Amino acid sequence: MLKPPEHQVAGHRAQDGQLGPLVDGCGIFYKPLQGDGRGDAEVAFYTSLFSHPAVPPHILSFFPGFHGTLVLPASDASGPRPHLALDDLLAGLRSPSLIDLKIGGRTWPPDCPEDYFQKCIVKDRESSSVALGFRVSGVQIQDPAGADAFWRPSRAAVRRYMVKDVRRVLRQFVSADPPSPDQKPDCALASAVYGGPDGVLAQLMELKAWFEEQTLFHFYSASVLLVYEKDAAVAAAGQQAGKPSGVRVKLVDFAHVMDGQGVIDHNFLGGLCSLIKFMSDVLNDPEAGGRESIKVQLSCEDGSLENLGI
Amino acid sequence: MLKPPEHQVAGHRAQDGQLGPLVDGCGIFYKPLQGDGRGDAEVAFYTSLFSHPAVPPHILSFFPGFHGTLVLPASDASGPRPHLALDDLLAGLRSPSLIDLKIGGRTWPPDCPEDYFQKCIVKDRESSSVALGFRVSGVQIQDPAGADAFWRPSRAAVRRYMVKDVRRVLRQFVSADPPSPDQKPDCALASAVYGGPDGVLAQLMELKAWFEEQTLFHFYSASVLLVYEKDAAVAAAGQQAGKPSGVRVKLVDFAHVMDGQGVIDHNFLGGLCSLIKFMSDVLNDPEAGGRESIKVQLSCEDGSLENLGI
Repeated sequence: MLKPPEHQVAGHRAQDGQLGPLVDGCGIFYKPLQGDGRGDAEVAFYTSLFSHPAVPPHILSFFPGFHGTLVLPASDASGPRPHLALDDLLAGLRSPSLIDLKIGGRTWPPDCPEDYFQKCIVKDRESSSVALGFRVSGVQIQDPAGADAFWRPSRAAVRRYMVKDVRRVLRQFVSADPPSPDQKPDCALASAVYGGPDGVLAQLMELKAWFEEQTLFHFYSASVLLVYEKDAAVAAAGQQAGKPSGVRVKLVDFAHVMDGQGVIDHNFLGGLCSLIKFMSDVLNDPEAGGRESIKVQLSCEDGSLENLGI
Repeated sequence: MLKPPEHQVAGHRAQDGQLGPLVDGCGIFYKPLQGDGRGDAEVAFYTSLFSHPAVPPHILSFFPGFHGTLVLPASDASGPRPHLALDDLLAGLRSPSLIDLKIGGRTWPPDCPEDYFQKCIVKDRESSSVALGFRVSGVQIQDPAGADAFWRPSRAAVRRYMVKDVRRVLRQFVSADPPSPDQKPDCALASAVYGGPDGVLAQLMELKAWFEEQTLFHFYSASVLLVYEKDAAVAAAGQQAGKPSGVRVKLVDFAHVMDGQGVIDHNFLGGLCSLIKFMSDVLNDPEAGGRESIKVQLSCEDGSLENLGI
């Protein structure tokens, strides 16, 4: 029995008769192919990725498993349509907290059409992408009030997140208490989720090492998706030995992947390094609640060139 | 006795009555302050850099020494004008080979004026910056025909360098033979100049480690300048023990440095990693003459979505 996924924070949604992804409840996620070439491109990417001899197996585990394409009735009742069959990244989780982070200061490829460039550059400049190297595309955090209660900011709100908001939401994401305007995020689950040998940071460092070398693919508008369950993380945080929190770190959305042509994906790599630094800051200084940098002075004390004799 | 520098491949030139830098022949380089705020900004950056407690001494050595400002007669005979007094990075070299690499896929800061953004983005897209994360701003390579003979492509030619041209010029830069349309660069000096414990690659890796952590400064339109002398490099290449080639690796041009505001310079870091990868490729495969990547297949074998049932 196919139905729209219960937890989805970014992308098109199969609700109210719209075209969107479906899940079968048995671990498969069906993503409808879009007819403007993006669907083709995503199928081609998955096919290439999973058949390329130069992609190491430990890197493949960062991607959803790919099970080909399947023609299914579309969620918008428009009739049969091919769908990508992928692993459902939320399978088996009842109350997932999740965040979708679109990586890269630039979401447009070098040789894209002018209208696509114009559309992307506006979004990149109006979000945190340009300043930070990534932006939040969606987030939901389980509320301790109940297993089915979530804090889920609107898409419009998330779209306006600038650097300080991103800093705060990455702290909130690993906090036990719900968001509050009067209180700093407690970061109680930071070491269980971001830290440790299987935590987000360790996994992102593995990805980073690959991106420093790989020249096969350039990922535009792709995301890092982080998923965990608070119950498991609370258990992990409460143990001395550091039981794994079961956090999942995956790359998603490959409609705009390009051939790397022998060049590394410096745009994705830079954004990934920026995310790694932000997470390290949470781990190293969980009390800070958004530490400010030591300020530097980049304007002349004495005003202007007039004072220098011009 | 002040005079225009003999070897200069990028930036404004003090020739034919233009405003440009001067050298005193005793190791100091005088750069005229520009009156539109860029001069101010560069003075402020040097002052901040050399007084900031968080900048480690081994990182300061990547920057030209800063000796304050001095009012000097301008090279365009417009009268007295303040000049930055910096170390002359070519001091003591008779026949330097040098290349100026402007780092970053983006040369404009996030909050810059619209006309500046428009000017920069056109140059970034029309050069190798967007695709490669850096571009060549200027290059001269000593010709073995004579100590005073140089191969120096025109600025117009360098401005049009795309990825394959950059790949070739980075090989040519460490070749003993002069450029030839019929012959691959020999890369005979690659291990002496790019390799070894004091070579370019080792120094760039040090810089990279700093850029992964530092959130003080964001460098827009700044360059990595590489300088060496062929005689020294040939001597180093001929010795088993690997005598140092004396290559100099410096950062230059800081009129567009911004406060990092607690975020790493993901744009500069990404470009630096791309440059590092290109140089590693030269070192690891000097015979390649511009190795192509293993091609990936990113378009559907069977054409389009029509074949998938849409």
